[in-house]
Amino acid sequence: MPIEVALKPIGVFDSGIGGMTVVKELFTTVPHEAIVYFGDTARVPYGAKSRETVRRYAREDTELMLAHGVKMIVVACNTVSAVALDEVERMAGSIPVIGMIAPTAKEAVRATRSGRIGIIGTEATVASKAYEEAIAREAALQGKSCETFAAACPLFVPLAEEGWTNHPATHLIAEEYLRPLREHKIDTLVLGCTHYPVLLDVIQKTIGKDVTLVNSGAEAAKLVAQQISEPHTPYPIPHTLILVSDMPRKFQQIGERFLGRPMPEAKLVTWRESWVVT
Amino acid sequence: MPIEVALKPIGVFDSGIGGMTVVKELFTTVPHEAIVYFGDTARVPYGAKSRETVRRYAREDTELMLAHGVKMIVVACNTVSAVALDEVERMAGSIPVIGMIAPTAKEAVRATRSGRIGIIGTEATVASKAYEEAIAREAALQGKSCETFAAACPLFVPLAEEGWTNHPATHLIAEEYLRPLREHKIDTLVLGCTHYPVLLDVIQKTIGKDVTLVNSGAEAAKLVAQQISEPHTPYPIPHTLILVSDMPRKFQQIGERFLGRPMPEAKLVTWRESWVVT
Repeated sequence: MPIEVALKPIGVFDSGIGGMTVVKELFTTVPHEAIVYFGDTARVPYGAKSRETVRRYAREDTELMLAHGVKMIVVACNTVSAVALDEVERMAGSIPVIGMIAPTAKEAVRATRSGRIGIIGTEATVASKAYEEAIAREAALQGKSCETFAAACPLFVPLAEEGWTNHPATHLIAEEYLRPLREHKIDTLVLGCTHYPVLLDVIQKTIGKDVTLVNSGAEAAKLVAQQISEPHTPYPIPHTLILVSDMPRKFQQIGERFLGRPMPEAKLVTWRESWVVT
Repeated sequence: MPIEVALKPIGVFDSGIGGMTVVKELFTTVPHEAIVYFGDTARVPYGAKSRETVRRYAREDTELMLAHGVKMIVVACNTVSAVALDEVERMAGSIPVIGMIAPTAKEAVRATRSGRIGIIGTEATVASKAYEEAIAREAALQGKSCETFAAACPLFVPLAEEGWTNHPATHLIAEEYLRPLREHKIDTLVLGCTHYPVLLDVIQKTIGKDVTLVNSGAEAAKLVAQQISEPHTPYPIPHTLILVSDMPRKFQQIGERFLGRPMPEAKLVTWRESWVVT
């Protein structure tokens, strides 16, 4: 990789704060890389919105990443990865794009012994069936037979945002969402939303301790490390630029909880709008 | 009121579906009026977003209302009413604007016997202290002495959107939010978010059956009826136009649950955007 490319940052974006769990993994797998993160906190959440709207937001998020001269784009949002990855790839041209779905499906198929894989995610991710398709492709490649069971968990995102990681209500809600998957006797569960690692303990306890949880952010971060050939790009102090479309201070507070360490001040980005009646 | 004004619709807007609880009340108080409703479902929720962002969204929502030739604007969103009513009024000029806060505060002060009033709402509404100030003004006018106790209930909106109106988790969450208000021995509780009437039963059960609940949408709808002097404007069949910025079909489904009756097809409105780094 030429030095002028190596010096460029990795772009990471999400609908909001969830993608910071991916940044946390990148700090481990590619600690010497600079990162530009964008969280679209003025329009969060994406997971309950339509395919068309998510694709429009994804195009605008990608535009912002490209404007920052990134050398790679990590789509740290399962919803965007599920319904708009082709749009991001089209706009990125020769710049590599890493989505959440493919590396996570690969690891889930590798990890399962019984072939019974559960998938949890937002309504949009589950409705897209992107994980089912990726797991079927991977199962064929790895010569395994897999069956999938999916459940949308819309309240997990607001619970994670609120930091209710061990509240009795969170346990009840997890029980409601995960009971059908437990009854299907899955042995592997895909955490198909970057918010869910925040609720890892309650999810593991509810689904059962013998079920392997596959964290999409961690799998994507491993793939980033494989694709960045130089282990040490020559930043003297690798820096992280955090951009958000709203609430920079709240983002920083919750982000530090997600990262488990201090993070740089988040900067505000806004956009112009005008109504168009269609 | 001149006939050409009487014939114009009442504009009603909210961040999403919550304002339909206000439309439901308007169907009772002004059944002969035409209504143009806008729910900003592409950017919902507003209640966890910043004052600046909510003010920008409110300006854009008002622009859409004015483009539809409304004769009155009902801000069917407590968050916008709390932080951006002045912006809506400025843009509306001579067109009357009805917010949620003033009529609700008036009724809460009228209803209380002990003077101990609880307020629940979104984070943005509670942080604004708009209800505290309006209740203090009303208490002075009505010659009463009132004390207020506020609690933000961020998970109530997603629970209402999910339709979990009687789930054990909803009861636990309500207990967590409302316990401090119960301990303060309030006798009146302001439902300071247009989503909350959907959770009326669980809120009443949790706070205690002797506490009077004041529904902001119902109070605003009474004020609309007072300001519309003609009881019967001459629409042969009063019509309702529903506009949303995303998910028209889901909006219609949930809207019919909120209204308790069929509603017209929701139409999609979109807008152009371009990033501006500030």
